[in-house]
Amino acid sequence: MQILSTIAELRAWRKQAGTVAFVPTMGNLHNGHLSLVQEARKNADAVVVSIFVNRIQFGQGEDFDKYPRTLEQDAEKLQQVGVDILFAPAEEELYPTGKQLYFVEPPMLQNELCGKSRPGHFRGVTTVVSKLFNIVQPNVACFGKKDYQQLAVLTGMVQDLNMNIRIIPVAIERASNGLALSSRNGYLTKEELHQAPQLYQQLLAIAAEIKKGNTDYTTLEQKATTALNQQGWRVDYIEIRQAHSLVKAQPSDKEIVILAAAVLGRTRLIDNLEVDLSH
Amino acid sequence: MQILSTIAELRAWRKQAGTVAFVPTMGNLHNGHLSLVQEARKNADAVVVSIFVNRIQFGQGEDFDKYPRTLEQDAEKLQQVGVDILFAPAEEELYPTGKQLYFVEPPMLQNELCGKSRPGHFRGVTTVVSKLFNIVQPNVACFGKKDYQQLAVLTGMVQDLNMNIRIIPVAIERASNGLALSSRNGYLTKEELHQAPQLYQQLLAIAAEIKKGNTDYTTLEQKATTALNQQGWRVDYIEIRQAHSLVKAQPSDKEIVILAAAVLGRTRLIDNLEVDLSH
Repeated sequence: MQILSTIAELRAWRKQAGTVAFVPTMGNLHNGHLSLVQEARKNADAVVVSIFVNRIQFGQGEDFDKYPRTLEQDAEKLQQVGVDILFAPAEEELYPTGKQLYFVEPPMLQNELCGKSRPGHFRGVTTVVSKLFNIVQPNVACFGKKDYQQLAVLTGMVQDLNMNIRIIPVAIERASNGLALSSRNGYLTKEELHQAPQLYQQLLAIAAEIKKGNTDYTTLEQKATTALNQQGWRVDYIEIRQAHSLVKAQPSDKEIVILAAAVLGRTRLIDNLEVDLSH
Repeated sequence: MQILSTIAELRAWRKQAGTVAFVPTMGNLHNGHLSLVQEARKNADAVVVSIFVNRIQFGQGEDFDKYPRTLEQDAEKLQQVGVDILFAPAEEELYPTGKQLYFVEPPMLQNELCGKSRPGHFRGVTTVVSKLFNIVQPNVACFGKKDYQQLAVLTGMVQDLNMNIRIIPVAIERASNGLALSSRNGYLTKEELHQAPQLYQQLLAIAAEIKKGNTDYTTLEQKATTALNQQGWRVDYIEIRQAHSLVKAQPSDKEIVILAAAVLGRTRLIDNLEVDLSH
């Protein structure tokens, strides 16, 4: 595995590479990221993973400064799963003037769900991913379903801006207790870590109700919210939506996703669960 | 020359092409466009010209509906100058849902000069050019200096979003009387066509003063504005700016551009002139 830190090096390598599968990350890699790499390997001659903690997708008061930077350990993990290129640019490489001037602006979906409490977040994501796409020029790119709204926004971007890249969604990796793997789990105390699977448990409870034919989505959302708040969480949202499009789910919809964001202690966690009623 | 109208055809052709130089146009081609093609030919194995009248860069009340569509004559001209691919998609090919959802948003420069009277214009340009770049995947792209602000905005976009494309600026083509070639000249009456070179004459007059050392830019702008208005024009702006960056010119600047937009009858014309004082 080569570790490259400049755009020029990456472009020089890209010229002689065949097909490329790309996994953009912010580092602090866990098994969720590694499952993206494994999927990537199946889909191209070479795999590029980027590690870049992207300032412009963090809001004021968010965790940009304390976001864990663990490049050495990350590189070891990537080496072991068979990555060809680790692209780890310094901030000045992607933002040489310190200021991004042109943004890829997503539609209204950017202001819903996680976007409601994180204004500008998805615009920061689409912009940096566009930049990385233009640098890496991948044939396919793998994104985890853990960040379901991000996946939806990026899938829409690729289609709407005619990017010649296939987006591959990859299933959520969970701990044996159900907790979705996330770099932000590292912020949790031991006690919180023990409590954290409650979020997924509420998603499972809603899914079970929906599968039984319950279409009173508002009540289901409210009950789960109340339950988590009583367990000491501060729920940001629990919403039942159409899969992929993320518009509000209707009782007639067959492909559904239940999305949740909630704060435990000082840590904001997200999770989601797809429900397919079509068979 | 092949004429292609679908993205799929273009992508299939692109796979086996070598380096590509791209000239995006809205058709109704004149010698200005053909000089772009000639420059393109010098810079790549193959030349792609697109013809697409892009609805999202026209404002309400602008000339989208009456913009001249002359595909047959355009194709003949392109054939003669040695173009490989004419890409002429229908509107549904680039906007299949009828609505663009993701936009490439340029910085404040989009609201100055021509952007002041054409809100959303440059956003429409950057967005469609991004789409076309993603479809054609050119190595270089040629743009005329006639649309100087457009060239500046697109050059900034390519740099800021790390697009792997070299932008080649091409000098303005003028009629023997000095009038800058433009598809919109076709809207002019015979009488207006006779009068139209007055715009360029004012740019030349300002340039002569600047070369003499006159740095009272505001007065120069105002005098030219008054002169044109007295000749029956309605001046939108005449501004002396730094070349390339388009920030307000200072007396110490050596590379300058004088930009103008003015309405003659019912037709809005633009023109500009660079002044290099560095030698």
